[in-house]
This record gives sequence, C-alpha cells and structure tokens, in this order.
Amino acid sequence: MIILRIILVGFGSVGQNFAKIIHQNFGNIFVDFGFYPKLVAVVDRGGAVINPKGLDVERILGIKRAKQTVSLDSEYGMVGAKALEIIENIDSEIVVEATPTNVIDAEPGLSHIEAALKKGKHVITCNKGPLAVALPALIELAEHNGVFLKFSGTVGGGTPILNFAKKCLKGNSIKAVRGVLNGTTNYILTRMETGVSFERALKEAQMKGYAEEDPSYDICGIDTACKLVILANYVLGLEVTLKNVQINGISKVTYKQIKEANKRGRAVRLIGSIFNNRLKVSPEEIIRSHPLCTYDVLNAVTFETDECGEQTITGRGAGGLETSIAILRDLIDIRDSLSREFNFNGRIKK
Amino acid sequence: MIILRIILVGFGSVGQNFAKIIHQNFGNIFVDFGFYPKLVAVVDRGGAVINPKGLDVERILGIKRAKQTVSLDSEYGMVGAKALEIIENIDSEIVVEATPTNVIDAEPGLSHIEAALKKGKHVITCNKGPLAVALPALIELAEHNGVFLKFSGTVGGGTPILNFAKKCLKGNSIKAVRGVLNGTTNYILTRMETGVSFERALKEAQMKGYAEEDPSYDICGIDTACKLVILANYVLGLEVTLKNVQINGISKVTYKQIKEANKRGRAVRLIGSIFNNRLKVSPEEIIRSHPLCTYDVLNAVTFETDECGEQTITGRGAGGLETSIAILRDLIDIRDSLSREFNFNGRIKK
Repeated sequence: MIILRIILVGFGSVGQNFAKIIHQNFGNIFVDFGFYPKLVAVVDRGGAVINPKGLDVERILGIKRAKQTVSLDSEYGMVGAKALEIIENIDSEIVVEATPTNVIDAEPGLSHIEAALKKGKHVITCNKGPLAVALPALIELAEHNGVFLKFSGTVGGGTPILNFAKKCLKGNSIKAVRGVLNGTTNYILTRMETGVSFERALKEAQMKGYAEEDPSYDICGIDTACKLVILANYVLGLEVTLKNVQINGISKVTYKQIKEANKRGRAVRLIGSIFNNRLKVSPEEIIRSHPLCTYDVLNAVTFETDECGEQTITGRGAGGLETSIAILRDLIDIRDSLSREFNFNGRIKK
Repeated sequence: MIILRIILVGFGSVGQNFAKIIHQNFGNIFVDFGFYPKLVAVVDRGGAVINPKGLDVERILGIKRAKQTVSLDSEYGMVGAKALEIIENIDSEIVVEATPTNVIDAEPGLSHIEAALKKGKHVITCNKGPLAVALPALIELAEHNGVFLKFSGTVGGGTPILNFAKKCLKGNSIKAVRGVLNGTTNYILTRMETGVSFERALKEAQMKGYAEEDPSYDICGIDTACKLVILANYVLGLEVTLKNVQINGISKVTYKQIKEANKRGRAVRLIGSIFNNRLKVSPEEIIRSHPLCTYDVLNAVTFETDECGEQTITGRGAGGLETSIAILRDLIDIRDSLSREFNFNGRIKK
C-alpha cells in the first residue's frame, strides 16, 4: 500500500500542524518510510472540506486562517457536514481524531473513534477523553475489526513515553510506573520553590500559554489521571478507566510544605503512579537527584523493571507541533506493520 | 520459525546470565513472543559444549562453576574446540557474541561476528570492540548476507538507548546527541563533588565492582568513545570508527574545578557528544536541573530533535543481568521481524 488516505477530524493546533507536516515532508516520508500520506477530508466545527484526489493543504490552511472553518472552501467545502457522515462515506485507510478532550462523556471523539473502527479504518488519536473513559472497550473494538488504534501523542506529547515502554522494554517485567505527566502543574510547583505564590505561578503559566483559561483540569490532577489510565491499559495491560484512579491535585500544596521538602534535598511534584494495579495521582516528595525530579514544564516517567532497575524518559510533554509529530510516528508505525517487506538493520528495502 | 537455535560464544557474567534467563523464561517467551530459544552450543576459553538437541542449562552452569570451563562436560564437552569451527559447523539461526571487549584489534570477537554473518547467521553482540573498530563494514556484511546484526546491550546495558532512538524517534530529525555513557567515571565525579579525592573515589569504585582493576579504559574515555561510535553509526547513519573520535578522559579533572562548577549550579560530567558529524568525549559542565546531570553510576543520553526538543533517557548502564536482558530483547526483535504474522495493538496473534 503506497498511498494512505487520511480523514482528519479536528483542525485546531494539532490538526493544522499535522497537515503542515505531512505536506512539507511528503517526499521525505516516501523516501524514508515508503508511503505517501494523502489527506482526503478535513472536518472542523463548521463542516468539512473533501477531495478524494487529495486536498491542497496550503489552500485549506489559508481558508482556516481567513474564515475560521475549512467548510467555506469554494470548491470542496461542505458547510455543516458532520464527521460521522464523512467517516462513514469517504474512502480512507486512516482516521486521525484530534478534537478537544472531554472527560465527562468523551464526546464527540468517542463516537468518531467507534465509527471509524467499526468501518474498518485504522485510528490515530491525540484525544485523551475517549481513552480515559473507554480504552478497554476501544481496544476490543479495534481487535474485533482487525485494525490499529494508536494514541502515542496522548501521553508525553512528542516524547514517546508509550512507545518506549512498549517497544523498548520487551523482555522486562514492569513492576511500577511513576510519572510527572502534566507540564502546567510542574511549572507551578517549580516556580513555587523560588517563593512565588500558587496564584502568581498559575497566572504566569497562563500568560506563557502553558495553562488553559480554566486550569482546573490540570490543577486538580484530571489530566495526569487520564494519562495514567492510558499507560495502565497500554503498557501494563490493566483494563481500567478514569473511575479507577484516586486523584489529588496540587491546589492544597503550600509554600511551607515545598520549603520543608527543599531543606531535606527534595522537591514536591505531582506524581501519577501505578503500583500493585492501583492508580493514584497525588503530590509527592521526590529526591532532587532522582531523574523523575524535573523542572518547569518537562515531563518524565520512570518505569521500574525487575531486571534492569529504573528507566526514566524525560522530555517536553505537550505542544501542537510535538503532538502532531507523535501522530506522524503512529502513521509510520501502522505503515510498517502493514508492510510485509523485510527491513534489515534499520535500512529500508523497497 | 518456532525454535531459534543459538550458539553462545563467551560464557562470562553476561553469557551465563543470558543462558539462565532463556532457561528460566522458556515458557513465558513462547507465550509472550511465540518462539522457543534453544541453546545448541556454548563456547568459552577452554573449549565448547555442544548438543544440537539443546543443552541442559543448569548442568552446564554447574560445570562452569565447578571446573571453570564448559568443555569438561563428560558427555557433550569438547576441550580445545574453537568458536570459529563451531560457528562454521553447528547449525543455528543465531550467534550470540559475548567475549570481552578489545579495542586494539577487536579480536577474537571481530572474527566470530564476521564468520557468523558470512555463514548467514543473525548475530547479537554485547562486545563493543568489533563495533568501535569496524561497525560500518559489519553492517555492510550483514546487509549483504541478508541477516540481522543486533547490539543493543553495547550502549546503556539494560537501558534501551539505541532502540529508543531508532524505534521511538521515527519522524524526528536528530540534530545532536549528548550522553553520560560510563557509570564508573560518573560515580567518581559524583563522589568528588563531596570532597573525596580522585584516587579514593576510584578505589571505592573498584571495591564496589564498578571499575576494573585496570580502570584506564573507563577513565581515559575509551569506553565512552566506543559507545559514541555505535550511536553515531546506528542512530545517525554516520560511517565512523574509534579513529574519528576526539577523546579526553577525566584524569585531569580537579576538585577545584568541580567546586567552582558547583557554585554556579553546575556539575562536571564526562560527556560524549555528536554534533555536526563530529564525535567528542570530554568533561563538561552540566546544569544541575538538566536531565543529563545524573548521579552515581546512572547513564543518560539526550537526543536533541528539531521538532520535539530534547528527549532524555536515563538508567543503569551496565551489569551482567541487565546486558543479558538486552540480548534477549534483540532476540525478540529478530523473531518479530522474521515473523510475518500481524500483531495488532500489541496483542500477539498466533
């Protein structure tokens, strides 16, 4: 399969970056990985733009900027078109689901993903909501329909935390997972170490674009809990959802507590942990020399293995460009798995 | 291919641990990864023990302990048998090369690896010598013979640094690599921060079993340079050998220098770096809050990517058990690549 046709649902920062990346690297992707990605439909809140022969990415990015919705494209736009109809009726191998996260009922992402899987399309998503609420059922559905469900951008953004655990720790038994999984809260806790108040640190985080206008999702630990659920399912094979996580956020962490910890060579961090099949999100004291003790917005996850001790991966945890790179990686993985060609020593044989 | 027959050359700590692991996990490996590893020959300095039907691992470990060489096994032992003959004449799919590292002429490991590749056998090695001296040529040879050459245990021991870069950073351009790649020197530098002298720190490292009796290989930066060469070839596709590395060890690092760095919130670490195709090993000052600033024997490597910033992986860098797990991972990878069965969503389909 040389061409992979893609329906992109959700055209915010991640969606637009993803479109840009596959457009700009069209030739390279073929040379390095042996396939052409072709965007056949893009859906946003206003409707869709569709061209089975392949969309002109620069043109639709221009229309999005100018008119807020791609559906106003004069030639291929469809005002009011719904994602579910497009997923159902437009031929494609892949659906990329990039609508905003909603942890209450996971919609509209959940319905999009279910529809695509049932239609026999591979799904790549960066939307944590459907996974936090229904990951075990979605994996079943993907299995049943013989397609891939990929979501490496949901944990760690561009830092490949899930793939690291899955692809690089084969042959190890993972006993425990502990992670700093939310950049916003880590930024706030890092700033509080220098004497800045919680309120001011939060305001700074908002000004720098790290925190949302309503930051409760981060502050209360929900974002960390979603990522923990995804790790538990994907890496440890636990069949759990958000309901199974005990969650405490950082709103009760005081400057005094942080200062006391600092005196003992420790720092307070919001840690998501999985141990003995129990999932927990809570502020914890971490020894400063431990790799898990990251600063500012850096994420880190430590996998504790029986045979090789602790292994930690650290990197930026979010960002539209970074997350869109994770989607591209998932796309390459799907293509690799579908391909039956041998690939010796990392060199591509075509 | 359900059974993979293995010739194991070199039966020191890594070799013995590897034999133990595949013996103890025989059933699990089949259940989780769909194949049985079968040890058909083990070679050590004294000779070999051979049984095409599969060796009794507990028995040969006992003989090794009691008599220092497996060749004294009364039934299957061959005193004085040479590895090259065994590689040539005993049927197997895999050769595991685990003899000690020699960076002068890379022997005997280099000849073993070349013979196995020419014979059409996949090779897994944890021996840095042949790779540091001749990796570009060995990769060519493996390609030419249509077999795999795997060496994930040579960098980071059980910490999957090479696999991380290769498998998890697809779709990224790696601009630079910087790493703390040698546990012994990192232990010494960490201890010197507390006021301990170089000599005493080295003695401690030897007493704890981190450093060899002749520690020059670590101290002078050769070990770090070997690992850097492997990273450069495997991850960045550079065709370089040890000759291409500019090497400075830690013997000239003074307590004063470390103390001055500490005052500025920095630590001195022995860093191997690849930037603009230039390979360099040298003590450098690292900001303490940077993930690359590890303590004691912990290794860490930072990959700087265009799209996703810096990504760091941290873990123990050595140890017989850890390195033998890396060999097992390579074995699983080879089996996965040879297998043409689909593997959806990480679940095994048999």
